[in-house]
Order: sequence, then structure tokens, then C-alpha cells
Amino acid sequence: MVERMLIDGNEAAARGAIVAGCEGYFGYPITPQSEITEYMSREMPRLDRVFCQSQSELGSIYMLFGGAMSGKRSMTSTSGCGFALMAEGISYISASECPCVIVDVARMGPGIGTGGQGGQTDYRFATKAPGHGGHRCIVLAPWSPQETFDQVQEAFHLAEKYGIVVIVLSDFITGRMAEPVDLKTLDFGPRIAPRVVICGTGKKNGQKAMPNTGSGAAYHLKQREKYRKIADAETRYETYLAEDANFLIAAYGSSARMAKSAVDLARAEGLKVGLFRPISVWPFPTKELREVALQAGEVLVVEDSIGEFLDDVELALQGRVPLHLLGAWGRHDETGGGIIHQERILQEVKSLV
Amino acid sequence: MVERMLIDGNEAAARGAIVAGCEGYFGYPITPQSEITEYMSREMPRLDRVFCQSQSELGSIYMLFGGAMSGKRSMTSTSGCGFALMAEGISYISASECPCVIVDVARMGPGIGTGGQGGQTDYRFATKAPGHGGHRCIVLAPWSPQETFDQVQEAFHLAEKYGIVVIVLSDFITGRMAEPVDLKTLDFGPRIAPRVVICGTGKKNGQKAMPNTGSGAAYHLKQREKYRKIADAETRYETYLAEDANFLIAAYGSSARMAKSAVDLARAEGLKVGLFRPISVWPFPTKELREVALQAGEVLVVEDSIGEFLDDVELALQGRVPLHLLGAWGRHDETGGGIIHQERILQEVKSLV
Amino acid sequence: MVERMLIDGNEAAARGAIVAGCEGYFGYPITPQSEITEYMSREMPRLDRVFCQSQSELGSIYMLFGGAMSGKRSMTSTSGCGFALMAEGISYISASECPCVIVDVARMGPGIGTGGQGGQTDYRFATKAPGHGGHRCIVLAPWSPQETFDQVQEAFHLAEKYGIVVIVLSDFITGRMAEPVDLKTLDFGPRIAPRVVICGTGKKNGQKAMPNTGSGAAYHLKQREKYRKIADAETRYETYLAEDANFLIAAYGSSARMAKSAVDLARAEGLKVGLFRPISVWPFPTKELREVALQAGEVLVVEDSIGEFLDDVELALQGRVPLHLLGAWGRHDETGGGIIHQERILQEVKSLV
Amino acid sequence: MVERMLIDGNEAAARGAIVAGCEGYFGYPITPQSEITEYMSREMPRLDRVFCQSQSELGSIYMLFGGAMSGKRSMTSTSGCGFALMAEGISYISASECPCVIVDVARMGPGIGTGGQGGQTDYRFATKAPGHGGHRCIVLAPWSPQETFDQVQEAFHLAEKYGIVVIVLSDFITGRMAEPVDLKTLDFGPRIAPRVVICGTGKKNGQKAMPNTGSGAAYHLKQREKYRKIADAETRYETYLAEDANFLIAAYGSSARMAKSAVDLARAEGLKVGLFRPISVWPFPTKELREVALQAGEVLVVEDSIGEFLDDVELALQGRVPLHLLGAWGRHDETGGGIIHQERILQEVKSLV
Repeated sequence: MVERMLIDGNEAAARGAIVAGCEGYFGYPITPQSEITEYMSREMPRLDRVFCQSQSELGSIYMLFGGAMSGKRSMTSTSGCGFALMAEGISYISASECPCVIVDVARMGPGIGTGGQGGQTDYRFATKAPGHGGHRCIVLAPWSPQETFDQVQEAFHLAEKYGIVVIVLSDFITGRMAEPVDLKTLDFGPRIAPRVVICGTGKKNGQKAMPNTGSGAAYHLKQREKYRKIADAETRYETYLAEDANFLIAAYGSSARMAKSAVDLARAEGLKVGLFRPISVWPFPTKELREVALQAGEVLVVEDSIGEFLDDVELALQGRVPLHLLGAWGRHDETGGGIIHQERILQEVKSLV
Repeated sequence: MVERMLIDGNEAAARGAIVAGCEGYFGYPITPQSEITEYMSREMPRLDRVFCQSQSELGSIYMLFGGAMSGKRSMTSTSGCGFALMAEGISYISASECPCVIVDVARMGPGIGTGGQGGQTDYRFATKAPGHGGHRCIVLAPWSPQETFDQVQEAFHLAEKYGIVVIVLSDFITGRMAEPVDLKTLDFGPRIAPRVVICGTGKKNGQKAMPNTGSGAAYHLKQREKYRKIADAETRYETYLAEDANFLIAAYGSSARMAKSAVDLARAEGLKVGLFRPISVWPFPTKELREVALQAGEVLVVEDSIGEFLDDVELALQGRVPLHLLGAWGRHDETGGGIIHQERILQEVKSLV
Repeated sequence: MVERMLIDGNEAAARGAIVAGCEGYFGYPITPQSEITEYMSREMPRLDRVFCQSQSELGSIYMLFGGAMSGKRSMTSTSGCGFALMAEGISYISASECPCVIVDVARMGPGIGTGGQGGQTDYRFATKAPGHGGHRCIVLAPWSPQETFDQVQEAFHLAEKYGIVVIVLSDFITGRMAEPVDLKTLDFGPRIAPRVVICGTGKKNGQKAMPNTGSGAAYHLKQREKYRKIADAETRYETYLAEDANFLIAAYGSSARMAKSAVDLARAEGLKVGLFRPISVWPFPTKELREVALQAGEVLVVEDSIGEFLDDVELALQGRVPLHLLGAWGRHDETGGGIIHQERILQEVKSLV
Repeated sequence: MVERMLIDGNEAAARGAIVAGCEGYFGYPITPQSEITEYMSREMPRLDRVFCQSQSELGSIYMLFGGAMSGKRSMTSTSGCGFALMAEGISYISASECPCVIVDVARMGPGIGTGGQGGQTDYRFATKAPGHGGHRCIVLAPWSPQETFDQVQEAFHLAEKYGIVVIVLSDFITGRMAEPVDLKTLDFGPRIAPRVVICGTGKKNGQKAMPNTGSGAAYHLKQREKYRKIADAETRYETYLAEDANFLIAAYGSSARMAKSAVDLARAEGLKVGLFRPISVWPFPTKELREVALQAGEVLVVEDSIGEFLDDVELALQGRVPLHLLGAWGRHDETGGGIIHQERILQEVKSLV
């Protein structure tokens, strides 16, 4: 029987890592994800696994690389500024194709931003360019503690399956919101042996003695093929009441939670509104969204920023469907806090329909 | 009379900064841009201006912030890994709206990549997400030493006009290629007084005593308006033999140089090929490219990566025109070096036409 | 039955720490002590204890502080430059009275010095001023792998007994010389509960929630009393054929090994030469040396530097006995390498007698 | 005519550096010396000289090295923790024999200590072991703003004369006490050309292209000779009413100021008390103090610590004269603040006489 427990998204991320067999956690506290670091600092040693608080996020990312290079499932978690400090390291790891997991619980940026409140402004950094070099990371965007728990588990699997960095892009609300979570360990089959392992000098069991860290055209061609495979196999999304909808809301993460409630409110008033929620934001469900959107005929993007997720929706829609944005100005408090509530979304829908 | 001198793109960047009145340069050597740092280390002190070699690129970016906050025209230059190390700082500066100039002479990434050869893999990082937070930097992409010299000058003007970070995105070939350059100081009118200046305690002349470094919804709404103004006023591009073309090459930077030669070769063979070159890559000339591309009917993107610039072209084309890519695999040497030569581009064009 | 094994001084230091119950090792490789770091990196995880390689020696010393503050037996090891980088941290730890153990395997300094050869130039730094603030560390100076093994064990005991940093001051020769070592775990009675432990907020079991890191006059008075107790109880030395000697050699560490052989050579020639070897160099056996030296009537200091240990001997002798120095110039190779051999010492003795 | 101005010791240090032709100042603010950093930040640029605030004291010391290696008169200033962070750098510089000046305005240590109050606990670190390696720095200890102004000037001269680091060891009271200062530029003759200058590749004008940073026996023998010359030529001290004294106070820096007043008070009561004040604390006036002390017959050391300066006095006295210490416990406030007042010293004298 699966244990069910009331926990928030941050604890879910930590617990997900532990049941997934994460053997090394390296992190530095930063709001609103410090609960993950705290949980791991307490639980990892109890399990005879490695917890190390770094000197800064620079240390975290390079220790993460070290952990992964040693063949162990390794993770860090961070937010905003800390995530940006990892840019060079993420790029470096990507050159090596080492499997690593990063949980980013987004806070409002740029700069130090506002740690204590919502915001979805890490989207473009995570999905487009976490570091120089044109590499890609798989980016999963949970909208609940349960999904956070599950995605962190899957992140380790995907990281090893493809030799890639996987980012679980949570946010303030998802991280701090508590809900009942089924603590079920997911089964992704036998663990894929890491292909890149430091093993002193020479090769061992066909493994490389040193990871690749340079990156020429051959590297890029290999990635191109890999990215295609990932796009084919790992694109995730879900719809809600979209089948008969004549108006579609597109949203991810905590904004999608609010949007789903707005759909319910709209339906209660007889409005045929539906929701499209990407679960993987890279790879992005471009074709899937296009199809659903063309059917609905009009799209409203809801995101707690001024248009980052919007770019991907626009690329999907190809100008063939009217596209609107309800961004950070939809918050009930523009001075830095707040959230875009379901009523505000409904109001926007009504003004457009 | 304007002095004319044979210099490479890196020296052109340094000289451009000096004639633009750059009063503080902060940098750390990294191939292939170290010539800029060297030039500044020698010339800035001679002019009683500040040169400071930082402990690392982390130091560079925060010193750049300090220089800009003091109301002085300030610049750094870097490449690849160094650029990524600046991510948090660029984000931090963007939150403050301090005017700063960064010259990035791209090398192949990700990771340490290959410093001694070409590559255009900093595109996505520079144009989409130099740091967390969803902010934007103006990104200019020179294709010659002359344009580098001119754009660096304009970069200081634009940075102050909009309160933004301006990136001059050069690359290995443009930086190391020598051509005659007219050393003409450009006139952008009277300098715009910096709005953000550290002046001890309290306000002075309407200036803020401390820059803003937090960023709530109000900040983002202000940026949204600013970004629109920039897109309206500062979008730059040029075309070459595109008027009657039935096949269009889209390229930027050094790849556009090769593409232009390929257009000449194609025209010599009677093929109606044209070129579209964005000069500003953010803001991107989306509508302008769409118009030219629709007229030509088919587009080939040439870029020395596996599809970063391609994303922006795809967004412009909206699926309405066949789109092809000649990427890093077009190099004559896939092991890490090389360049996509004009003959290779011509060959690709012919295979498509 | 005690296990006996042929190991060098560095391995002896690592093994000593492990049998003493060291639960956390934090270090950064530096010649000639890297064998300790390597050994600990391999063995500590096997024992479910903490090994962490730091970003630099700055990281090592502050992690050591963290380990000690958590109530665990903690150690670092280093040499020369790395030891100097720890100065502020050692001072900081000393203000807190946290028990810590540092093994310094001296290399020639100052600066980067010569890592691959002998030298006893860390003496003054270790015994007089490892950091600002006038605090003291207990400094033990082994002259063999066996003594290294034993002293590292005792170091943990002394550190906790007095709430002090204990330095085991080995050197290149002692660290790299292999001899049979009895791997006997020493018994110092029940472990003394650490008085300074981070335990969240508030006090627990009479322990402080936060270590003291300030240091006023009250702190210094407390230390003064502590230092007196240590001097009374922990001063260690040994003599060799000193009873009837009319000429005394004073030396510590590897130089004392050579000096002992020189004594044997001298005795074989009928010269009444003896040896005085401080085992603790802080506290220094001042009175004990004075007594032995007054009886012998003449003293030769042998040390592989130009007079650091000499200062302490001079303070002991009070100008009442002729004092000579055979320093680094006694090496068979003045260009940076070498060692002061027994024949050279004998020659010096003969020229003085 | 010499300008006379009421300034404190910190401003005197900064002004002394400027009139001495200091061309580069590199520092990081720390109480109680931040006034020096502030003054230099304002005045150096006005004079077209270099001011650079470092990222931390680690940066300061290595930039100081860089400035000195370029042949320019260079200085840093710091206190307590910052001084300790420089240990490796001071050692490194000493290996190169580059001339550098460090002003240390002591605060109470160890650790972060108490920045806002007195304390003379940097004595042992400065005079015995500022870094590993057994090198020496000349250490001058001013007791007034005037002497600070003069000694900083002389420090540059001595640093170049001997190729050594010169430390001006001020303290909280001397640094913050304001007195009229004659702002006279001292004349030490023509500047001695720096022997160690980075000049690209190869040698120039007999200068080395790269400083020596290794250190073998040959280096140490050279230093030994140098240290002897310095001891012969640069030992400084002064006495006050010591000729007929039958009780001698030995003190340095601000404690000597208090002691001098105590001597006046004692004399007013008919007590034949005198003062011996070392001005250079390395080299220490060992023989001079011995002579004066033997004549007086009894010595009281006054220092705001628990016995660092005492060691040097003890070495001088050779146990031939009764020796007492009035240390930090003589402060009117043992909790961390205070100063050892003249009345307290007088009381101690009376209790001993």
C-alpha cells in the first residue's frame, strides 16, 4: 500500500530524489527552495548518502558535476540568482553529457528579485539558455507536490537515459503549497549504466576515464540527433475540457493551476473554455498545442511574467490563431507580490470572448 | 579627414570603446577576445581612464556594474565560459537598468569548447536568456571590424538611451579578421545623463542614491513598455540582392559574410539567390524577415551551430515558407575547427533549388 | 595482537585519524601531503564517514570549523601555502574554542616554495602565529611514521580536552619515509563531550547554540589560564644520551632523526654528544631544555631553515650557554633540495667541540 | 613652511602614502581602518594614481603584489581578519622580495574579534609569522598620527632598500586619535630602482622578467644576511626618563602612550620610573632593551593582550631582571572594550615597587 502524506512541493522534491536513489545532494540555501536543502541535510546522512552544502551555487554545480562523474545519481536545487550562477557549470556538464538533476524553484527575477513571492521568470533561462553553448536541458514543469515528487524521480531516469541535465522547474507556489501526495516509488526499469565515469587513468568496463568537456561540430551533431529523439519520446502535456472548447488557455506550472480553476468557473457560466498545459516545457509540445489551438480558435496565455512562455506558444501557433497574454500585471499586487487568481483569469477570458 | 587603419575586429572593439568615451574597462583574458583586454590594459591608463583586470569574469561583471552605477561609461569583454559566468551579474544589472556594454567574441561551446576556432553558439544565451529573470539585452551582431567599431560606439549610446545592457555579439572570425577600418567617431547627440547613480546617501539632481535591484511586477511592466520601444526604434537588418531573389539565405555575423560570397557565386551561375542579415539580433527583425522571405518563397539558414538563430527565423516565417538549415556540419572540419565556406553554402543552395 | 605494517608518515596520519574516530575530513591536495587526502577520500566513505574535497584550503578550514561545531571529530591536512591560506580560519576557530586537528606536512616556503623536497620553515607560523589574534595552538612534531600515527590520535584527545586547535607538524621527510608502524588504537579514556555545538536555536544539554567568535579581554584571560594548564600538563620532549653529554644537539622532527644518528657517530668516536628533542613544540619544553643544556654546557641547533626553532632554544638558554646553529646551509644541496645529513652534523659538532 | 593639520592616525597613514609617491592602493574596508580606504578612494584618482577596491583581502594582497611587480610604489591597509587572509600572499611576496607596504590597524582578535575597540593582538602575527615560510617583514609601530605619517613614508623607502614587505602596525587608538600633524614630506634620498619588475619576456635594464617565487636554501641564506643588515641598521626605539630609573615600563604603540603618562604620574609622586618603547618591533631592539633594563633592575610590560610583546622582552632580558606583565586584564572593561589607562598602570607600578 502506498503511503499518502500531506507535504509541500519542496518536501516532495526532496523525497522524490531520495526514493529515486539520489546518492549525492549539493546545494546552498536560497528562498523559496531552502526546505529542500534542509530536508536533504537531515535525511541524506541518515541514509548514508552524501549531503554537502557548498560555499555558493558555483560550488554546488561543480560538485554536482563531480558527483555525476563518479557515476552516482546527483542533484542540486536552487532558485533565481543561484540558478544563474550555475550557468557556466550547466554548460560544462552539458558538454560532458553527464546525467544531472537540478530542481529550480523559481522566484521573481531578474537580480535578487523577490524571494518571498511568486513569479515565473526563470522560464526562458531554463528552457532556452542555461549557459552559453546552445545545449539543451530537459525541463519539466510540475503544478503540484504530487507531480513534483513524480517528476524528480523521472528526472533521474531521463538524465541517465539521454546523458543530459534535467531541470525540474517548480515555482514559489508549487514549492510551498501542501497537498496529499502518494509516496509511490516509480519504476522506470533497470537503471541505465552511466556512460561517463571518472575511473582514474585509462578505461574501465568501456567507460571513459575522463568526460568530454570540449565541444566541436561533432559534439553538436550528436546532440542534434539526441534532441530529436527526446522531442519524439519525451514531450508531455495535458488538456482539460479542451475537446469542445472554443477558447483555450495555455499555461504551465502554478499558473496552470489557477487557469484550471478559471476553466471551471467559465464552464459554470456556460463558456466553452479549455486548458492546454505543457508538462515538459523543453521539449515543448509545439505540434500538439498547435492542433488543439487551431480547433479552439483563440488562445490566452497566462503566465506570471511578461511573456517568456508566450514565445513558445507563438512559435506553435504560427500566427494562425489570435493570441493574447495575461501576464504579471494580472497579479492582485503589482508591487512585487501576488498571484494571478482564477477570478482575474476568468475576467480576462470574458473580456476576450 | 577620417583616419583609416588595418585592424582586426578585436582591436576595432577596443578602439570603438575608447572613442565612445568608455571610462572604465573591467575584464579577464579569454581566447578569442584577449586582444581587447590587452589593448585596453595599455591604452586606458594612457588616457587616465580605468582599466582593471578582474580575479575572474565574476569580478568583471560586478565591477562593470560598479562602474556604471558611478555614472561612467563602462565595458567588459569576454567569450563563452566567461560570458556564462556573468549570467547572474547581467541579470542583476538588468534589474537596476544601469547602462552597460559587453562585447562577447563567441567561441564554440558549451563548456570550455574550442577557443581557438569559430562557432556561433552564444546566440541563444545572448539573445534569449543572459541570466535568470526574463530581462532582455539589446544584442548587435557585427560582421566586420568596421561594424564592430561602429556598433561598440552605438552600444554605449543605446545602453544609456534605454537603461539596458547592450551586447555586441562578435565571433572568432570577425574578431580576428583584419580589414581597413574608418576610425570615425560617431555622433549620437548629447550624452544622456545616467538615471541611476550611486551618490552616497540621499538623492542628488534627481538621481537615485541606490539602484533598484529587486524586481516585482511593476518592474516587468516597465520593461515590457521599454522593450516595445526598442523593438520599434532599434531593429536593424540589411538585405543583399533580395529584391528579385527566389531563394533567400538568412545569416548573421561571420556566417553572413560567407553567405554573401555564396550569393555572389550563385548569381554568377544565374541563380536568383539573396541574403537577409539581421544586424540587431535582439530586437530581431521578425516582420521584416517575414516579408522578404514570403517574397522569395524559400529560406536557407546558415549558422555555425545546430539551430539557435534558426528559432528566430522559424518564428518569423510562421511555417509559411520552406525552411532549411546549414549548420555546424557544413564546416570543412567537424572535429572542432573550421568554418562554413562559401562553396559549401553554394553547394547547399544548389541541392535545394 | 597489534597489527604491524610498513607505511609512510602520511598514511600513518590518515590511519591515526581513522582509528581515533575522525568523522569528517576536509582537505585539498597539496604536495607533500596529498597521500593523506587520497587515503581519506577512499577510506572515509567506506566507513560511512564524511570526506569532502574543498574548493581550496579556504574551504577546508571553514568546513573543518563546521564539522567541529557539529560535535564531530574533524580534521584537515595541508602544507605550506595551503596552511597559510587557513590563517584566518584557524584564528576564527580559536576564538570559538572548537576542537580541531590540522596535519601540516611542511614543505619549503615562503610562497610556493619547493613542494618536492624537505624544509622546516612552517615552524614559526605553526608555533607562534597561525593567524592574527595572539591565540595558541598545541603543536606536536613527530619524527617518525609511528609517532605520527600516535600523535594524530592524541591530537583529537587534546583538542577536546582543552577546546583548542591541535597541529601535527610533520614534514616532507617524515611524511614520505616508510617504517613499520604498530597500528595500535590509543586509549585516552572516555571522549570529552564537546562544549561547543551548534544545535539550532537555544541551548541543549548545557551546550551553546552558537560558538563564540568574538574575542574580548575576558576571552584572552580565559585562554591565558588554559595555556598555563596546557604548558604544565602537555609539554613533551625526549633526550638521547644527554646524561653525561658535554655537547648537546637540539632538534625536532626529521632533523632530530639525523641528529640522533650524528650522536651515534660522535659517540663512536668518543665524543660525549647528546640530543634534546622537543616533541611538543608548543608548549615548548623551555625549562627542561634549559636544565639539560646548562649541564652539557654548549648547544648546537640543527633545523632545516635559518633559525625559527632557534628562537625558542635561545629563549630557553637565556644566554647562559654558547649556542650555535646548523641551518638550511647544511643541506647537501643549497639550490632548494637536500637534507642535513648526519655526517654534516657530525662535522659541525667536531668543528665546535 | 610645513603645513600642520589636525588629523587622525588613519588619515595620517593615507596622507603619508600619498606624499611618499604611492602609485597604487588596493584594499577592502574593515573597521577600524576603513578611513584609509575611503581617503585613498577619493584622493588617488584625483592624482591620477590607482585605487582599486578588491573583492576581499585575498584580492588586495595579490593586487598589491601585482602593483609592486610593475615597479610602482604600492600599498594596502587592513585589520585583524583581513590581515590573516593575506598570510599566503605576504609569504608569496616575501619569496619574490618585492617591496610592498601594509598598514595594519589592529583590532582585537582572534576571529572577528571586536572591531570597534582597542587591542594589540596582531603583534605576534605581524612580527613572527605573517604567513608560512619563516620570512620576516619589517614592522614599525607608531604611537601617534605624526609617527604614522612619517613611518608610512619611510616604509616605502625601507621596502625598496631591502626588497621586503614593511608593515606599519598601528592600532584602533592610534588610528582613531586626532592630533596636529606636520605634513612634511620626508627625504630618504633618490628612490632605489626596484630590482624585480615584470617586463614581458626577457630581461630589461638588468631587471628580472619574472619575480622569484620559489624558495630553496639559497633564498634563505640570502635572507639571513639581509635580516642581519636590517637588524644592524634599522632597529629603532626611544626611552623616556630611563636614565635614572629603578623601574622600567616596556610598551609599544598606544600602550606606550598610556605608559608615558603613567611615568609622569609616577615621577610626580617621586617614583623613579622610566619607559622603553621599541619603534621597530621587528627588528626588535633586544640588546638596547637589555642594557636599559639591567640598569633599572625591574621591568613591567604593558600591552593590550595577554603576552605577545612580552615574548620579545623576555628574550631580551634573559631572565636576569624581574619581569611583570600588565595585560588585557588591565582594561577598565574586560568584556571586550576599554583601554589600559595611565592610572591603572601607575597602580600596577606601585603594587610592584
